[in-house]
Amino acid sequence: MSTAGMEAIDLRAAREALRETAPLVHCLTNTVVQTITANALLAAGAAPAMVDAPQEAGDFAVVASAVLINVGTVHERTAEAMRLAARSAGAAGTPWVLDPVAVGGLAYRTVLAQELVALRPTVVRGNASEVLALAGAGAGGRGVDSTAGADDAAEAAAELALRTGGVVAVSGAVDLLTDGRRTVRVGGGSVLLTRTTGAGCALGALVAAYLAVTDDPLTGTAAAHAHVALAAERAATVAGGPGTFAPAWLDALDAIDGETLATADVRVE
Amino acid sequence: MSTAGMEAIDLRAAREALRETAPLVHCLTNTVVQTITANALLAAGAAPAMVDAPQEAGDFAVVASAVLINVGTVHERTAEAMRLAARSAGAAGTPWVLDPVAVGGLAYRTVLAQELVALRPTVVRGNASEVLALAGAGAGGRGVDSTAGADDAAEAAAELALRTGGVVAVSGAVDLLTDGRRTVRVGGGSVLLTRTTGAGCALGALVAAYLAVTDDPLTGTAAAHAHVALAAERAATVAGGPGTFAPAWLDALDAIDGETLATADVRVE
Amino acid sequence: MSTAGMEAIDLRAAREALRETAPLVHCLTNTVVQTITANALLAAGAAPAMVDAPQEAGDFAVVASAVLINVGTVHERTAEAMRLAARSAGAAGTPWVLDPVAVGGLAYRTVLAQELVALRPTVVRGNASEVLALAGAGAGGRGVDSTAGADDAAEAAAELALRTGGVVAVSGAVDLLTDGRRTVRVGGGSVLLTRTTGAGCALGALVAAYLAVTDDPLTGTAAAHAHVALAAERAATVAGGPGTFAPAWLDALDAIDGETLATADVRVE
Repeated sequence: MSTAGMEAIDLRAAREALRETAPLVHCLTNTVVQTITANALLAAGAAPAMVDAPQEAGDFAVVASAVLINVGTVHERTAEAMRLAARSAGAAGTPWVLDPVAVGGLAYRTVLAQELVALRPTVVRGNASEVLALAGAGAGGRGVDSTAGADDAAEAAAELALRTGGVVAVSGAVDLLTDGRRTVRVGGGSVLLTRTTGAGCALGALVAAYLAVTDDPLTGTAAAHAHVALAAERAATVAGGPGTFAPAWLDALDAIDGETLATADVRVE
Repeated sequence: MSTAGMEAIDLRAAREALRETAPLVHCLTNTVVQTITANALLAAGAAPAMVDAPQEAGDFAVVASAVLINVGTVHERTAEAMRLAARSAGAAGTPWVLDPVAVGGLAYRTVLAQELVALRPTVVRGNASEVLALAGAGAGGRGVDSTAGADDAAEAAAELALRTGGVVAVSGAVDLLTDGRRTVRVGGGSVLLTRTTGAGCALGALVAAYLAVTDDPLTGTAAAHAHVALAAERAATVAGGPGTFAPAWLDALDAIDGETLATADVRVE
Repeated sequence: MSTAGMEAIDLRAAREALRETAPLVHCLTNTVVQTITANALLAAGAAPAMVDAPQEAGDFAVVASAVLINVGTVHERTAEAMRLAARSAGAAGTPWVLDPVAVGGLAYRTVLAQELVALRPTVVRGNASEVLALAGAGAGGRGVDSTAGADDAAEAAAELALRTGGVVAVSGAVDLLTDGRRTVRVGGGSVLLTRTTGAGCALGALVAAYLAVTDDPLTGTAAAHAHVALAAERAATVAGGPGTFAPAWLDALDAIDGETLATADVRVE
C-alpha cells in the first residue's frame, strides 16, 4: 500500500461532496436495470434521469452533471441517443461512463462500443471479458458473465486507459481500476452482488455520479467501487438471500457516510 | 376545513369502490417505473396493463377503466401510442391522467405534453415545475426534480384546470389539488417517497384507478394522494432506509382500508 | 397419482441439474417484468440475458441454453427480434418458451402469437384465457387477467400441445400442464403470486431454464411450476403483504434445493 497514493484517493471527501451537491446523472442504460440504477443513485444522494430519445439525449447530456452509457439492451434508436449524448458530453466537458455490457460476443454492440470508445469516455467500466474484448485482446464472454478474472485484464485495461486518456475499471472478486499509470484495487463486496440483476450496471451509474463531484477520475471511480462493495458487505449480513439483499443494499448505500467509506478496502499501487 | 367540502370527498367510499371493482388501468408510462407502477396498482386492488404499441394502444384504451399517460421516457413510437390512447379515451369517455415528467426543460416532450393537454386530460399530475411549465408560467425543473413548492404553482394549476375542464394535482411536501374552483390539500407522506424511483409516477396510476371508481374527479384524485401519503407514513415507521421503504410502502397500500383512509390529512378549501 | 408417472417427473434431478449447469436463458420479454425475471433466474441459479435488438436476437438465441419469448409489451422492433430468435432456436434445436400475454384481446399480438405457434415452441405457458384464445377456442381475457380457470382450458391445451408437438402449461390456482398425452397438475403456491407483477412471466423464464437441463419438456415444465409454487408458499409465511412477498419469494427460489423440490405438490395423470 502506498501512503502517498492513499492520500490522493480521498474517499471521505468524495462521499461528502456527493451528498452535498446531489449531481444529476443522465443514464442511457438497459431497460432491465433502470429501476435499481435510479434507486441506487437516489440512495447514494444523487439525482437520476433517464432520457433516451434521440430528440432529447444530446440536449440533456449538456444539462446533466455526468452521463452513463450502458449498451445492455441497445438498439437503433437508443444507439443514436447514445452517440448524441456522448458527443454532447465530450463537447461540454461533462464526465461520462461507458459500460460495454456483453461486448465481444455480439457484433452490433461491439461496433457501437468501439465507436463510443473513440469518443474517449472518462471511464470504461466492465468485467474482464468485456474489457479484453474492447481492448482487442479477447472474444468476450457469454452475455453478462465474465469467464476471466479482473487481473487477467490488467494489461488490456491499462492499454485501453492510455488510449482513451481516462480510467478503465474491471469488476471482479477484487476490482481493478487503472488510469494507465496508477492501479487501484478495491476488495470487499459480496457474492450476492452477482446474484442481483443490475448491481454492476448501477455501479456504472455511481461512478458517473462520483465523477461529477471529484477532480480526479481515478478517485471518483474508486469511491464508487468502494461504496458499492462496502454497502454489499453490510447488506449481506442482514439479507436472507438474493431477494432481500437488494433493498438492504440500497439502505446501506444511503447509510454509509464519508467517515465509514474511508474504511473501505482500497489499495493504491 | 369545510365540513361541506369534506362530505363531498368521501375517501372511505372511494377506497371500498376500488377494492370491489378492481379497475383495469392502462398505463403508457416510462420504462424506469413500470414495475413499481404495476405493483402499486396491484397492491391497491386495481389491475394494471401496459400496452404501448401504436397498433394496440388505441383499442386497449377503450377496453380499460382508466388510462395513464406518463412521458418520462417518451420517444416517437410511444408518443404515437399516447396520442392514440388519449384520443380513444376521450372519445369513449374513459378518464385519463397526464403526468408531464420533466416537461419544460426538454422541447420534444413539452410540445407533446401541450398537444395532450389540448385533448383535455381528466387529471394532470406533476410537480410544481412541471405544472408551471405546462401552464406557460415557468421554464421547468432539471429532470424530475421540482425547484418550486406546490403552492408556488397554485395559480398556474387553477388556470390549467379551467383550461382542461379537469383537475390539476401538484405534488409537494403538501400536495395541492384543484379543479379551478375547489382546492384540496393532502398532507402527511414521507420524504422517503422522493427517494424511491417511481413513487410519484405510481401515484399518477393510482389517480387513474380512483377516477374509474368515483364520479367526482377531485374526489378520486384526493383519494389516490391520501392513499399514497398514508401508506408512506406507515412504511416509514418500519423501513430501514430507502431500499426497504419500497416493499413496505406496497404492503401498506394493500393494508389500508376505507376506514383507515378516511383518517388521512385531507383538507378541502 | 401414478407412481410410474411420478418416477418420470424427477424434480430433484431437475433442480440439481439447474444449479450445476447455470443455463444461459435468453429472454425477449416485456419491459414491465424484465427485472424480476432476471432476478428469479439468478435466484434459481440460471444466468439471464435480455437481448432484443433484431441485429442481435437471432445470433444470441444460438448461443443461449434456452429462449423465452413473452409478448407482453411487444411492438414492431421486438416482434421482429422475436421472430428471428424463435427461428434461430428452432434451427439450433434450442428449447424455447412462448408466453402469449393478453393474446386474444388484442389483434396485433394475437397474429404474432399465431405466427410464433407455427414455429412450434417447446412450451407455451399462459393463463386459461390466453391458451383458449391461442387454440382458437376463446376470445381472450381483459389484459393479463384470466376469466377462466385452468381446467376450463384442458381440452384446448391438449389440442394445442398436439399441434406444436410440445407442452402447454395453463397457470391457475392449480396449474395444468400437458403434452397432449400426459397431464400434470401442480398445486400449492400463493394468491400473492397474482399480486406481484411479473411472477407469471418469471415462471415462463424458469420453464426455459429447466428445459435446458432436462430431456423431457414435461418434466422441465413441471419442475419450474413446482419451484415457483413452493417458493411462493414459503414466502407467504414471512411476507407482510404483496410488497415484501417479492423479495421473500426470490430468497425462497434460491433456498429450495432438490430434496425440498421433490416434496412439491405435483400430480401426474
